[in-house]
Amino acid sequence: MKLATLKNGGPDGRLHVVSQDLRRAVRADDIAATLQEALDHWDHIAPKLRHLSDALNAGAVSDSIAFNEEAAMAPLPRAWQWLDGSAFANHGHLMQKAFNLPPIETAMPLMYQGMSHRFLGAAEDVCLPSVDDGIDFEGEFGIVTDFVPMGTKAENALRHVKLCLVINDWSLRAIAPVEMKTGFGWIQAKPACALSPVAVTPDVLGEAWRDGRILTSMVVNLNGKPFGTVPANEMGFGFHELIAHAARSRDLPAGTIIGSGTVSSSRYAEVGSACIAERRAIETIADGKPSTPFMRRGDRVCLHALDPKMFGRIDQKVLVPA
Amino acid sequence: MKLATLKNGGPDGRLHVVSQDLRRAVRADDIAATLQEALDHWDHIAPKLRHLSDALNAGAVSDSIAFNEEAAMAPLPRAWQWLDGSAFANHGHLMQKAFNLPPIETAMPLMYQGMSHRFLGAAEDVCLPSVDDGIDFEGEFGIVTDFVPMGTKAENALRHVKLCLVINDWSLRAIAPVEMKTGFGWIQAKPACALSPVAVTPDVLGEAWRDGRILTSMVVNLNGKPFGTVPANEMGFGFHELIAHAARSRDLPAGTIIGSGTVSSSRYAEVGSACIAERRAIETIADGKPSTPFMRRGDRVCLHALDPKMFGRIDQKVLVPA
Repeated sequence: MKLATLKNGGPDGRLHVVSQDLRRAVRADDIAATLQEALDHWDHIAPKLRHLSDALNAGAVSDSIAFNEEAAMAPLPRAWQWLDGSAFANHGHLMQKAFNLPPIETAMPLMYQGMSHRFLGAAEDVCLPSVDDGIDFEGEFGIVTDFVPMGTKAENALRHVKLCLVINDWSLRAIAPVEMKTGFGWIQAKPACALSPVAVTPDVLGEAWRDGRILTSMVVNLNGKPFGTVPANEMGFGFHELIAHAARSRDLPAGTIIGSGTVSSSRYAEVGSACIAERRAIETIADGKPSTPFMRRGDRVCLHALDPKMFGRIDQKVLVPA
Repeated sequence: MKLATLKNGGPDGRLHVVSQDLRRAVRADDIAATLQEALDHWDHIAPKLRHLSDALNAGAVSDSIAFNEEAAMAPLPRAWQWLDGSAFANHGHLMQKAFNLPPIETAMPLMYQGMSHRFLGAAEDVCLPSVDDGIDFEGEFGIVTDFVPMGTKAENALRHVKLCLVINDWSLRAIAPVEMKTGFGWIQAKPACALSPVAVTPDVLGEAWRDGRILTSMVVNLNGKPFGTVPANEMGFGFHELIAHAARSRDLPAGTIIGSGTVSSSRYAEVGSACIAERRAIETIADGKPSTPFMRRGDRVCLHALDPKMFGRIDQKVLVPA
């Protein structure tokens, strides 16, 4: 089933069930007022949502409304925890090679904790302080968990994956390396992310949900031009391993969002990239300098899975002061 | 005024106003159900809480109860954002010298985002997976903000400080350097922090609230023995500067907690330290190896301001599997 959050004036919006084809939606707030509430009591709530979803897809719901992806809030407009991995090693290799960085020596998954008090809707403008910060998108796949007890092992972690989605992890590239060098992770370089219009249960993905990975491609358009159609099959750790890593010394609250990191492929020459920084790294390796600029005022980026109806489209415009 | 959160079975507890001497408390949930709600509408709510506080301190509240520090939840049992600084340069210098680390080259405040979906109560046991992780406390002072718009400058930031408190930033020292080396900050090395029994408005601090700093000492007892009485006057950045740093590319939600980092003094030979890792660094510099062990099962640490009635006492026991 597919779930969305529509505006109701409150910070967490109102939960809706959306049809498989993303054409219709129906209020689900008599089952759970918000997606957070649904995740807090998932085992109890999910069967009721699924019943409503089945009826909606069968055309048997009389009070459905037209679903407008662009009007959706993030499925979780705020969450108690956002942990972003960097599980595509190819992305790291390119960045290190281009910028002469020392390799990151760890056998553990890479992961940072980002701001989670605000996730932008899929078509929400991105308001940032300055184009001089090196404004960039990152196309990622992600999952949402229910409550995960501390110490959960990878082999028991997949059962905690309740929803899958697409994430645009907005990044400020002029600040990122400065903060990274401190070892403390990112504050200024990682403003609010955006989430796809719908979050979907793993069964929706069919064969694309395998080995704890979302095995489709990330399709990226920048100002209407193709930028990448990057297969996600080189994800080095599965989401079950990212969950176990995160839960080593803490419980994870229901509604924890975990990201894959920028989707990246060693066949980048054919398939492109899911962020500008990686393309600039490829250009630097080839030509000694980057030629693709970071985003400018009014630029748009569109991100979606190979089937754009799977999660809907993220399509955002950059707003910065003139 | 002093505010506390007492248990009511819910995740956010019930807001109480506490007397200056920490002896009496009165329910404040007819004014705001939770501290988060009070912070969300502070300008409107605070005058009413202060009115109740004045009455309580004048002995004019009939339905007050005895206040028990040990029964308090964290004033914010969960928060939308926890950003921890490391504003005492002496602590970093000692760690670098002892462990031959490269100096962190930045003129910016050091800051990481930590888990905020759970803050332990002041007397709550600390359940961690293993003593082999190098279990350590960090005695810090912290502040709580109302909503801070993106781009707020340091000179305008102090008005957003609504509450002050003491924080025990639990740390796992065997994991911390491994995670730090990735540049991504800490996930496993930073489990849930504890907060002091009460959070207090800055006016309570009198002369100790100056230059955006909490200018008292951090008193630390480990298993009943004095470990440090560390003056906080060497804080390199004030909380107004930490707020401005954090708000560079994001709004801060009401209830954002910002920490000072471990309180540390260049007069450490006289005043001691506010974490075991720093004492071990001092021992390593002097003797070539550390002699103070990290915490073991059943060990207790107690943290409070020079006046223990200012914020109350954090007093916690470490629980790990045998």
